[in-house]
Amino acid sequence: MTTPFKTIGLIGRQRKEDITDTLLALKHLLAQRKLATVVETETAGYLPKDKLPIYSRDELGKHCDLMIVVGGDGSLLNAARAAVNHQTPVLGINRGRLGFLTDIRPSELDNKVSEVLDGKFVEEKRFLLGIEIEQNNKAITQDIALNDVVLTPGDVAHMIEFATSIDNEFMLNQYADGLIVATPTGSTAYALSGGGPILHPSLAAIVMVPMFPHTLSARPIVISAASKITIEIASTNETAPRLSCDGQALVSVPPGARIHISKKPEQLRLIHPLDYKYFETLRAKLHWGTKLA
Amino acid sequence: MTTPFKTIGLIGRQRKEDITDTLLALKHLLAQRKLATVVETETAGYLPKDKLPIYSRDELGKHCDLMIVVGGDGSLLNAARAAVNHQTPVLGINRGRLGFLTDIRPSELDNKVSEVLDGKFVEEKRFLLGIEIEQNNKAITQDIALNDVVLTPGDVAHMIEFATSIDNEFMLNQYADGLIVATPTGSTAYALSGGGPILHPSLAAIVMVPMFPHTLSARPIVISAASKITIEIASTNETAPRLSCDGQALVSVPPGARIHISKKPEQLRLIHPLDYKYFETLRAKLHWGTKLA
Amino acid sequence: MTTPFKTIGLIGRQRKEDITDTLLALKHLLAQRKLATVVETETAGYLPKDKLPIYSRDELGKHCDLMIVVGGDGSLLNAARAAVNHQTPVLGINRGRLGFLTDIRPSELDNKVSEVLDGKFVEEKRFLLGIEIEQNNKAITQDIALNDVVLTPGDVAHMIEFATSIDNEFMLNQYADGLIVATPTGSTAYALSGGGPILHPSLAAIVMVPMFPHTLSARPIVISAASKITIEIASTNETAPRLSCDGQALVSVPPGARIHISKKPEQLRLIHPLDYKYFETLRAKLHWGTKLA
Amino acid sequence: MTTPFKTIGLIGRQRKEDITDTLLALKHLLAQRKLATVVETETAGYLPKDKLPIYSRDELGKHCDLMIVVGGDGSLLNAARAAVNHQTPVLGINRGRLGFLTDIRPSELDNKVSEVLDGKFVEEKRFLLGIEIEQNNKAITQDIALNDVVLTPGDVAHMIEFATSIDNEFMLNQYADGLIVATPTGSTAYALSGGGPILHPSLAAIVMVPMFPHTLSARPIVISAASKITIEIASTNETAPRLSCDGQALVSVPPGARIHISKKPEQLRLIHPLDYKYFETLRAKLHWGTKLA
Repeated sequence: MTTPFKTIGLIGRQRKEDITDTLLALKHLLAQRKLATVVETETAGYLPKDKLPIYSRDELGKHCDLMIVVGGDGSLLNAARAAVNHQTPVLGINRGRLGFLTDIRPSELDNKVSEVLDGKFVEEKRFLLGIEIEQNNKAITQDIALNDVVLTPGDVAHMIEFATSIDNEFMLNQYADGLIVATPTGSTAYALSGGGPILHPSLAAIVMVPMFPHTLSARPIVISAASKITIEIASTNETAPRLSCDGQALVSVPPGARIHISKKPEQLRLIHPLDYKYFETLRAKLHWGTKLA
Repeated sequence: MTTPFKTIGLIGRQRKEDITDTLLALKHLLAQRKLATVVETETAGYLPKDKLPIYSRDELGKHCDLMIVVGGDGSLLNAARAAVNHQTPVLGINRGRLGFLTDIRPSELDNKVSEVLDGKFVEEKRFLLGIEIEQNNKAITQDIALNDVVLTPGDVAHMIEFATSIDNEFMLNQYADGLIVATPTGSTAYALSGGGPILHPSLAAIVMVPMFPHTLSARPIVISAASKITIEIASTNETAPRLSCDGQALVSVPPGARIHISKKPEQLRLIHPLDYKYFETLRAKLHWGTKLA
Repeated sequence: MTTPFKTIGLIGRQRKEDITDTLLALKHLLAQRKLATVVETETAGYLPKDKLPIYSRDELGKHCDLMIVVGGDGSLLNAARAAVNHQTPVLGINRGRLGFLTDIRPSELDNKVSEVLDGKFVEEKRFLLGIEIEQNNKAITQDIALNDVVLTPGDVAHMIEFATSIDNEFMLNQYADGLIVATPTGSTAYALSGGGPILHPSLAAIVMVPMFPHTLSARPIVISAASKITIEIASTNETAPRLSCDGQALVSVPPGARIHISKKPEQLRLIHPLDYKYFETLRAKLHWGTKLA
Repeated sequence: MTTPFKTIGLIGRQRKEDITDTLLALKHLLAQRKLATVVETETAGYLPKDKLPIYSRDELGKHCDLMIVVGGDGSLLNAARAAVNHQTPVLGINRGRLGFLTDIRPSELDNKVSEVLDGKFVEEKRFLLGIEIEQNNKAITQDIALNDVVLTPGDVAHMIEFATSIDNEFMLNQYADGLIVATPTGSTAYALSGGGPILHPSLAAIVMVPMFPHTLSARPIVISAASKITIEIASTNETAPRLSCDGQALVSVPPGARIHISKKPEQLRLIHPLDYKYFETLRAKLHWGTKLA
């Protein structure tokens, strides 16, 4: 059987658990199948020196047909933000603990990755959010997010006052600790612990979850992913709130500035084994089998 | 200016507050404009006897080009379930207290209704859910809902055990007091007081809100309105739970039966004045202006 | 070592799982230790016929110094409501699944029950609520509750309008599906799935949890167990709501009637093994070890 | 009629709204009644220069029999932390917007303050929390809180891992954005917007509200105010979380350190007019009169 993928990129982030074994297993599997292998710079540091080509995270996607990410959902988020620019599909291998995005366990690596390389897989599209911060009619920052955009106070002791509009229609003024704007992919991450609903990944929708809102009748609101969100930081704020994308970047948003959030045209191509079932992952991650008594 | 509506149907339900004045004002306005007027049977009882044609709630929509509903959101829900069969557009006049669906106040009646009759209006589509209860492969009941489908115990002292599937993929077994399945229209009604998110009316999505779930990690979940939901009542339930559509009908669902829920092809044609703004209604209804301190 | 308990009462309710083995093991253990044993009527039916004295649930406590309950928390609730009248201490054995009140597992029965009979135990006091329904200045019903008092609609389609006062000071009018009034013991049962907080069992406090309240700013409120709660069912209600104590009794409360709730002077004497730890049970029951990812 | 208060201290914090008018009105009222008046340093700056004695916030309570605070609940919190050391009673005047603690409106000032000075008032006791941060068996910081103690990440992008014990019994390990520990007084402040219950002010209880907990089954827990809480910051945390008392101080808590929280022996003496009703304030502040529809 022929594979749709000729060159495979390896990328992974090491936290507490070691990912070297998994990377080596992948390297050998790819060598056996005579597939070209390229490696991301930091990832190469976890492997014994050899002659595999090395590329930066941002360049890797340009030089391969499939990126295999080793690590947790955080590692995949990190890699995905780079992969999406080159429209390179991404496959996630977890380090032993099931992730929402990394659904192949190390013990299944041989079988499941082989199947994918044989062309037996499902490709799922996950959309991303594009963020632009504008001040005095000038864009001062741009970023993207696969999970969520989170607005938090610059100084923990201050609430933020901000106004939200959807497609240029004013929605509300809020006085809160912050705001989470999440995709369906991010709806099972931070937004969920903030009381947000789960959005099925096939849904073209965005959820906005207020954080510790001063108004007790504030509720999470779900809008179309085709909508354009504008968040204006009231100029009455004494300190500049901060904005974080996928928990990674953190920029200051000056009072008076506006945050524009809208769906990016490019989507993440997420690869799953054929037997992948979203609700199975959901049940496992949320312990839905476990009854109270 | 010509009106797109030649014959107008009047319908309203009286609860505590009198609707006769509003009906009379409408009748005179329509007579002035030389528009044909027809009246629903119960509604005719609130008016002095005259020669206007009278039709049942289910027939009214067939004999008019626009139904004007006087009352609260409950009255509009009631009328809409009949209107949708004939694809008759519906306009709501509230009795002094703003509704999500009835957004013209009696004091604005002359101006706003005249504008609508002049053809100055926006038409919004709201989808409905079709419900079918199946037992032993036979459909035993069918119904529709504009707001929500609510599963509750037949006997308040018993929890219900049920299994939910989405597009034939098993989602979870639940042990709970019940389940609310709501459209965006219904997301600001009962589902909201049960902890569900607000769904923007333009969203093709359905929210499922578990009621007093035994599993503390159960959360509201939002799925595509194109999905087919199946709820199987476990045969272990000792009593038959009950199902209610828009808080109106209430049928028994025997243990072992399945409830199938999916979007109806016909949508409600909801008429608003030109200056209607969804978020304005939302802010007013949820008191979003009011801060805690 | 001498035992403080001369006569032991056995009581248990059988649901899905068999309790006969556990009852027999207890009977033999007590016979070995030459302790007098008496049995509750229904419980005697699960045992082979012999000459042990048999008493009704309500009489059992009068004829023994310790009641051993076999079953789940529901069985203990049931037995406790009878035991408290005679101030008989109660010990709970679960059927394999840890309960909040039944904390000895069948496998630990020999060791742990022997310890208790040897006088090595801790006695914990749990307070109960006394409930009186009053209409036209006459008491029409009285009941007690160890877990909770739950007000629900007589007909699932109707919300209830009611006014709550604490120590004769008006608190609020509510329009809701119902109200849960729970003791600390009941705070980890139904009230918890309704969004109520956990109250430590040593706390002399009562929590009131509104069910699906119409006002979005309604919140659970915790008051002193020394307070007297009065709930007046508005005479505007078209149907009579129902009241349930510990999920067992269910009485109708006519519109216009008042429900008086206050702490009973008699407390339940709950016996635990020496190594009992409340938070250990809490962690186990609420799966607090399990992280989201 | 004689007054129990011979010398009155004036204190107030100015935010957006001017408090000078209210301070002047008070000064004149006290002069008319020939009562000695002393003023806090910052507060004196809002008044025209005169010969009234001036004391620092911390000293003021020593030199008067009653402190009158002008401002919002924040101003009263600030003053109360100083007043409690001298056991000086405190009376709050709001700036036009009702507070939970400042319940006299400027328009009622003449009547209500006069009544209080005439000895017609109720005194309510509110307890405070004492906080001690310990590292390597040495106390490194001490503080007090009338409302709440809030643990937050030092860096917004990091969750905190911490272990909580109650009276030296281990409760749970948590992985969360933070934790709010609130008194009944603080239960209607920040803890409420985080999903905590309302605790009646007469209750000797403390509520612990996890902030964005990773475990979905985490819930607010209410414990006795007589309990000693210990929060141990796991040494695995890469950055030092921060602790804030009543939203005012903010100290760093090194990984490995322990936070000890317990009720202070001294209580705040809060003065109310005779017609003060807690639930009236609660209804007004939480807009409990306002129904959803």
